[in-house]
This record gives sequence, C-alpha cells and structure tokens, in this order.
Amino acid sequence: MEHRGLGWPRLPRLLELLAALAVQAVRASAVAAASPDLCLWPMPLSVQTTPRVLHLSPDNFFFSHSSTSKAGPSCSLLQEAFRRYYDYIFGFYKWHHGSADLRVGVELQQLQVSVILDPECDTFPKISSDESYTLLVKGPVASLTANRVWGVLRGLETFSQLIYQDFYGTFTVNESNIVDSPRFPHRGILIDTSRHFLSVKSIFKTLDAMAFNKFNVLHWHIVDDQSFPYQSVTFPGLSKKGSYSSSHVYTPNDVRMVIEYARLRGIRIVPEFDSPGHTQSWGEGQKDLLTPCYNGKEPSGAFGPINPIWNTTYSFLSKFFKEISTVFPDEFIHLGGDEVDFDCWASNPEIQDFMRDKGFGRNFKKLESFYMQAVLDMISAINKNSIVWQEVFDDASKLMPGTVIQVWKAEDYTQEQSKVTEAGFPVILSAPWYLDWISYGQDWKRYYAVDPLSFEGSQEQKKLVIGGEACLWGEYVDATNLTPRLWPRASAVGERLWSHKDVRSLEDAYRRLTIHRCRMLRKQTPARGKLLTTSTQTLDWLKPEG
Amino acid sequence: MEHRGLGWPRLPRLLELLAALAVQAVRASAVAAASPDLCLWPMPLSVQTTPRVLHLSPDNFFFSHSSTSKAGPSCSLLQEAFRRYYDYIFGFYKWHHGSADLRVGVELQQLQVSVILDPECDTFPKISSDESYTLLVKGPVASLTANRVWGVLRGLETFSQLIYQDFYGTFTVNESNIVDSPRFPHRGILIDTSRHFLSVKSIFKTLDAMAFNKFNVLHWHIVDDQSFPYQSVTFPGLSKKGSYSSSHVYTPNDVRMVIEYARLRGIRIVPEFDSPGHTQSWGEGQKDLLTPCYNGKEPSGAFGPINPIWNTTYSFLSKFFKEISTVFPDEFIHLGGDEVDFDCWASNPEIQDFMRDKGFGRNFKKLESFYMQAVLDMISAINKNSIVWQEVFDDASKLMPGTVIQVWKAEDYTQEQSKVTEAGFPVILSAPWYLDWISYGQDWKRYYAVDPLSFEGSQEQKKLVIGGEACLWGEYVDATNLTPRLWPRASAVGERLWSHKDVRSLEDAYRRLTIHRCRMLRKQTPARGKLLTTSTQTLDWLKPEG
Repeated sequence: MEHRGLGWPRLPRLLELLAALAVQAVRASAVAAASPDLCLWPMPLSVQTTPRVLHLSPDNFFFSHSSTSKAGPSCSLLQEAFRRYYDYIFGFYKWHHGSADLRVGVELQQLQVSVILDPECDTFPKISSDESYTLLVKGPVASLTANRVWGVLRGLETFSQLIYQDFYGTFTVNESNIVDSPRFPHRGILIDTSRHFLSVKSIFKTLDAMAFNKFNVLHWHIVDDQSFPYQSVTFPGLSKKGSYSSSHVYTPNDVRMVIEYARLRGIRIVPEFDSPGHTQSWGEGQKDLLTPCYNGKEPSGAFGPINPIWNTTYSFLSKFFKEISTVFPDEFIHLGGDEVDFDCWASNPEIQDFMRDKGFGRNFKKLESFYMQAVLDMISAINKNSIVWQEVFDDASKLMPGTVIQVWKAEDYTQEQSKVTEAGFPVILSAPWYLDWISYGQDWKRYYAVDPLSFEGSQEQKKLVIGGEACLWGEYVDATNLTPRLWPRASAVGERLWSHKDVRSLEDAYRRLTIHRCRMLRKQTPARGKLLTTSTQTLDWLKPEG
Repeated sequence: MEHRGLGWPRLPRLLELLAALAVQAVRASAVAAASPDLCLWPMPLSVQTTPRVLHLSPDNFFFSHSSTSKAGPSCSLLQEAFRRYYDYIFGFYKWHHGSADLRVGVELQQLQVSVILDPECDTFPKISSDESYTLLVKGPVASLTANRVWGVLRGLETFSQLIYQDFYGTFTVNESNIVDSPRFPHRGILIDTSRHFLSVKSIFKTLDAMAFNKFNVLHWHIVDDQSFPYQSVTFPGLSKKGSYSSSHVYTPNDVRMVIEYARLRGIRIVPEFDSPGHTQSWGEGQKDLLTPCYNGKEPSGAFGPINPIWNTTYSFLSKFFKEISTVFPDEFIHLGGDEVDFDCWASNPEIQDFMRDKGFGRNFKKLESFYMQAVLDMISAINKNSIVWQEVFDDASKLMPGTVIQVWKAEDYTQEQSKVTEAGFPVILSAPWYLDWISYGQDWKRYYAVDPLSFEGSQEQKKLVIGGEACLWGEYVDATNLTPRLWPRASAVGERLWSHKDVRSLEDAYRRLTIHRCRMLRKQTPARGKLLTTSTQTLDWLKPEG
C-alpha cells in the first residue's frame, strides 16, 4: 500500500508544511480547478491535482480501514459513511458495464481510511472537533487521513466530489493530493419549525445537503410564537396545547433520531428556545408564564413576553432547561432573547411596581437583562454554554463572559461585530445571510461576497468570530419549498465559512457551483440507478441578470 | 336510480333556470361554503348544499355511464378519468376499514355520468369546447351531466373536492346540487422550456395541477434565444444545434405524449414559436436565417432577429409552420412577436436598402409589421389562427382581423385592453399575472384581486376578452422549483378566470385556498395510501404580513 511509505509519525510535519504552503496552494488550486473535472465545493485549503487519471469499477472498489488506523469496523459512524458515500459515488449513475473494456491505466481499488488519534466514533461533534483531513488519491490504493472521524467525513465528501464519469461512462478520478481544514469552526443553517412544521424527513434531507456543503451546525429554532412542536416530557402540555396538532410535534424519539442522523454526518444540533419574547405558543400549555397585558387598569386578555417578575417563571424555566440539557447533547443552548416587546410589560401594574422596587425606572432593557441574566445563570449552572441574539448584548449592562452573541440585524452589522468583539464576546454572524429574503436574481453572489472578518478590530477581536449561519426563517417556507429555497443559495455561505479567505472569484465559484448543484440533485435522488428527472442544463438563475 | 325521475329532456330547461339564478346562487354558495367541508376551488357558478351527509365506501363505489349517456366504456378519455378520480378520492388516505361500522345514513354507491350531446371523446379540446356540467349529489346514485366530455372532466374535479373524511375516517359527502360553467373560455398557464428545459414528467405534473384548478390551456413557450428543444422532423438541425444537449429535446413522441396527456384532462396545448426576436437559438441550426449585425461597414459577427427581407426566410418559415400545424392539433399557434430589437436591423446595409425601397424610412415598426403580416398570412393559409404578443398590435398599421392579442406589459394594461378591443381584436390578459416575479408575501391576493374586464370599454369590447394566462417565465425556474413557485399562486388566477365575477372575498378565498392547497399536495403524492410527508398545518405564507 503506497501511502504507508509516508509513515504516520511524519504526517503531522507534512501537514504543517502543506499548511504553510496553503496560500500558494490555493492559487495553484484555482488553476488546477479550471479543469472541467475538478469542481470541489467548498474549495479545500490546498489542492494539487495531476492529469494522470485512475479508473474505478463499482464492483471492485471499497472503503477500508488502514491497519494503523485507530478506528475499525466497530466504528459504525464510519461504516455508515462508507456505505453512504459508496452509494453517492456509484448509486445514481447507470453503471456502464461495458466500459470496463475501455479502461486504460491504473485502477483505483480502495480508499484506505486512517484515523490518527482517538477517533471519537461514539461521541457528539463539538465546536472544537477537528475536521481536518488529508486525501492522497493514487492507484491502486488512495488514502484518507484525519485526526478524528469528523475529518474523515469531510474527506469522504471531497473524495466523492473528485470522481466523475468520463465520456465512456467510466468512473474516473485524477491523481490528487488534498489537505484541508475549515476556516471557521461554527458553520450553521437555521431552520424554523414553528412558523411551519417540518417533517423529520425534511430535516434529514436538509442535514444531507448540509453535509454536501460541509456545514456542521443545525441551529434548530424549534419553537416560537406560532407553535410549540417540541414534546417535553416534563411539561407535556406545552406541545399538547401549543402545537398545530398532535401530528405536528417532535416526540422524544423524533428528536433523538434527528440528533443521531446529524451526528453521523458530523453535524451538531443546537436547539433554540427563544425567550422572553416569541413565546405566545408557550402560554397555551403553561398558565401563569406569560405577562398579562393591561388596558389601563384592566387586563386586556392578551399576553406579552414571559413574565420576568414571578418566581414561578424561573422554577418552570429551570426544570424545562434541565430537560433540554439532557435531551440535546450539544454544549450550547440558544436562548434567543430577540425582539422583546416592552409595551405589554409597561402596561402591567405588577411589573410597574417591580421596576420601581428594583430602581429600573422606565428602562425596560434593564428588566430584559434581569431576565436574561437569570436564564443565563441557569444554563451555566447545568454546565452548558449559551448563544443569544444580539439584543441581549445591546441591552445588557453586564453579561456573563463567554456568552456567544449572534449578530442578525442587517444594518451596521460590521459595527456590531466590532462592538461585541471589543467587549470580548464570541460572535456568530448571520446578518448578511437571511435566506428567507428572496429576490429576482443571483443573491448567492451577495452571500458569497461577504467576509465575516471585514469589520474594524484587532486580530484578537477577529479571533472571536467563531463562524456564521445562513438563516431560513419559516414564515414562507415549508416542506414544499424548503429545498429549492435553501440550496444552492446556502452553498455560497458554506464555502465562505469553510474555505480560505482568498477563495473569492465569483467566476470560478459560478463554474464550480453549477456542477456542485447538479451533484447535490443527483445525491438527493433516492433510488440507485434511477435517472434524474430534473434535466437542467443551464443554470440561468445563477447567471447575471439583464 | 333517483335522478332518472328528472328525465333528460327536461334538463336543459333546468340548466336554464339554474343559470338565471346564478348570481343569487353565488351569494347563497358563499354562505354554504362557510361549512368547513365545502372548500371548492375554483368556486362553481351555483352551489346548493345541505347538511345531509352520504357515506362512500372505497370497495362499494364506482363511476358509471348512465344508460342514456351518449358516451360509454368505449370513451377511453372518461374511463381514464374515472380511474384517476377514484385514486384521487380514495388513493391517498389510508382506508379506515373499521369505519364502515360507524357509518350511518345513506351510502353513495355510484356517480352516474351522462353526456347529452356528441361526447367528443376522441377530439381535441377547443376554445369553443363546452365545459359546463351539472352535479347532483344524492344517495345512492349521484349524477353528473354535461353536454360534452369536457364538462364531465370539470365535474369530476368538483365531485372529488366535495368528498372528505369525517372524524372517524369515513368518506363523506354532503347532498349537493351544483351547476357550473366557466366565465372565460381561455384559461392558461405559460411555461418556458427554453431558458430551462423541463422534463416531460414535470410538464405532466403541471398539467395535473392545472386540471385541479380547471385551467384549460398550456401555453408552451417552447423555444427562445437560450435553447431550441423542439425536435423538428423537417429541420432536425434546429434542435441538434440549438438545444442544450441531445437529452434536452422534445422528440416527436414527447410532444405527442404531452398533447395526449393534456387532452385527457381537457387541456389544449398552444405552442409558441416566438419570432422575429427571441430567436438566437434558431440561428445555430439554420444558417442564413438571422440578421447579420454590422459595426459600421463590417459584419460584427453577431446576429439579430430573423432577417425579414430574404425570400429564404419565408420559405423556411412556411415549411416549418406547416410541420407545426400538423404536430400541434390546436387551432391556435402563438407567433410571439414581442421585444424585437431594431438596432441590428438598423445596422445592416441590405436592410437599410430594403427599408428605402419599401418607403419605410427609419420606421422599423413597419418592417416588423411587414414580417409579422407575412407570417400571419402563412398561418392563415394553413387554416390556423394566430395569437401574438401586444407589440404586434401596437406596432402594426393594419392587422389581420381575428388575430388574438396577448396583453403582457404591466404598465397601463387596462388602457391597452381598451385599445385592442376597440380595434376589434380578441384579448388574452397576462399583464398582472407574471408569476415569475416573486415577493416576500401573499402575492396571490394581488393576482386574485384583478378583474380581466376592469377596463374602459363597451359591452361589445368586454366580450372580446377571451381569458387570461398566468405566465411562469423560465429564467429562474426549473424542475426543482417549478411546482412551489407555480402553485397555489396560479390557483388565484384559475379561480379568477373560471368563477363568477362576484366571487371576490379574500377571506373566503383564503379559507378555501388553504384546503385546496392541501388537496393538491395530496393528489400529487403518487403512491396510494402513502402518508403525506409534507406536514403543513398553517399556511403562513398565505397570511397577511407584519
């Protein structure tokens, strides 16, 4: 086996060397990628490819574990990934059996996978998970090397993107050498299952597409004003009363399935339970939680945000988030905190008294902070970290260090990034990537042109940007239009968050994204050997307008 | 059989009476339709319904031909429709076999279909085809009566919409009496298969959805600048050179299949071969057809619209349209004629000479008219009628009577309708219904609010409006987003063109469209008994914004 000659102890040094060459390699890769056959997405850190081609035969190719790998057949995450990528590579196409005769040159018979450190087969991905990998494609045995299984998953995706069918239908790959790791550790997609319920099947499909684009966080905005589909074991009334119907809930088993499906693809599930605003649906199943609004001296019958002055609120939330912390394995919980409407609070005499007692005056931002701080403390006490929307930072006098701030307001977002990082808080950027906003043209270019670090600030501040998220809010999205609205538009964000900052050519991105889109369509076509019903030769939606 | 008591000879008088009561009935129906179980779309002319329910058992219900019907089992169009609607009604749901025990009251065992006049089983639908029908739902045998099979197809759709499953899962229908006929005879959807190729399967799916909304014309904008997917027998080079690839063509067999699939649903296929502009792709396979553009005295290498001054142009077009007239059975051919760019014509010295000889001066509209008149004469000579875009009327000094003008420019379109009808030409309205234009919200309400007769003009002028079309241009549409972009937005246009002008309540439309949308989703779920994967409880995209 060719690659053994390298010897594993030497690999870290090799990685180092290659990383040092990264910038040059990116430029080199831009040339290499001009080959019609090399349309990787997102672009890896370093790609070296040659004109020498290898051929693959579906019945004579397999994935294997290197004898020196720390992972083996007992690592079901990898076994499942091998099966999945075998299908992606060979499943869609009708095999051209006759083409074996036409094959010339060397055959690629195996991709040997090696995990260097503790593989983390049975753990959940984390923000600090190592996704780097090295891929050496040469015959007859190619090798994929990574520190952890997470890097193997990313490398398998890249490997599958390298393979194409030549003119005679023969599966072909160019001898290549790829070293890759992500620019940002948090690369997310936000889905909203409150405005419209999304079936578990739709979520699976989204997770598949995320893996094709090396996204690693599904930000699950699971509940909101409109509905409460999360079935809580502690408070079953919440979804019983707050969901659209008994069919429109995520049972504990559904949630487990989503988390496992994501884990197998190296994707974290970060649940969001947004409060104190955006909680109308909570009030259906949980009495005495929301603030009664007043018309003068009388309750109006309407309810506002969660009531921040009652002890019962906090004992409820404490129990609730305790459940959430056990259901969702990720170290982060998103607490929301956006768009709190102060009018109802202001109308409520009890809250007016409370404000006076606390010396908050008429500053409801202080009341908001009071509430958020209590919830943040709660999350901290159960050993989780918190993510919040930017208002929680904007309106707070003080805020627990380490709280992650998600910047979402489009106006002056770079200024907001400067402020948040100057105060020392980590940032997730979403402001320029609200994909529920639609337009008649190529908005992917706008998403692509963004650089998450294009704000004023020191190198220390820039390091606080842990990544970004493309948000697809659900007001006008359900399972009927989720996929075409999200993909390939979100792919632009995927590359921006994974690839080197110098990968910016719109022309090259257009060329690669065109091919990547077709690849995604093929991969999402379920049946093996089934012909694609979508015949899309040109991608005018990608072309310049006018 | 209950309905026999009516006696067929008396039915026309009954129809007459009921038609006279139409306006009142519409108002009555608005009340009746407030029942959650009556969500017809588009709203029939007259609906009388009662609280008396009948039950249907999938294994004890069938469609039949009345013994007095002019159509029988040899009418394969109806046989296929019976099979299709049986599946629509019973196929999607899991049957609740236990529910038979819970049934009370009368069972509906049969829908007996009667065609009064020559059924037209084996003909193609025409603009003058009679789509009216009467539906009497009572037990144990309901009756559907129509002059022609086209009315039967519309009545079957309505019948399927009447049936719902009660709380126990029993198929249920209220005793009802419906008399229905369309407001406009031309109710179309434009698809564009040049900007993006659409597979035959996608076109079938569109035709299915059109039938659910009682549309009766597929305006097939089959070729344009971008590609020429129509495979011509006479000029095979056109698609060979002008299509995206050899897989992105409509073979003669594909075209026949589309025409037949449409015919079985009472839908006409009106092909558009747009010229002299929008013809770049024609030039690939047909040399010496397009105008060579000039830079000063030298040909620039670029080509403009079809060259209107060469005899070869007209001999080519004559042969081409002769083929088209035999391939497409409809009496109408759409000749396009929109957006002719005069710059290239103006640059060409030969055309300059021609203009001078003809005394056209610098008025290229005269040259455009010269060309269009020649093509219109050609179409007339092969006994077809022509539809053209509004510029052909705007720019013409004289125009062949009977030419149908399609009004598409959004600006001042009512004024254009006034002008065109004042000049005595029939009108198809599309201007307010460009569905490729998207927005973040409920644009269906805008489409719904339009009245095609809201222009200044006499009653005679209004009669010249033969209908309208919702246009889905293909710049940003392919098979991946065709269905969610078209439906249910086009449904708003469907009701506007079918239903009485007084059916205008947005609130009631919202209620019915919500149900109709779910019905469409169910009907487009292929496998019998398969559960819908789309769980969409609320339809927020339909709700008011803000």
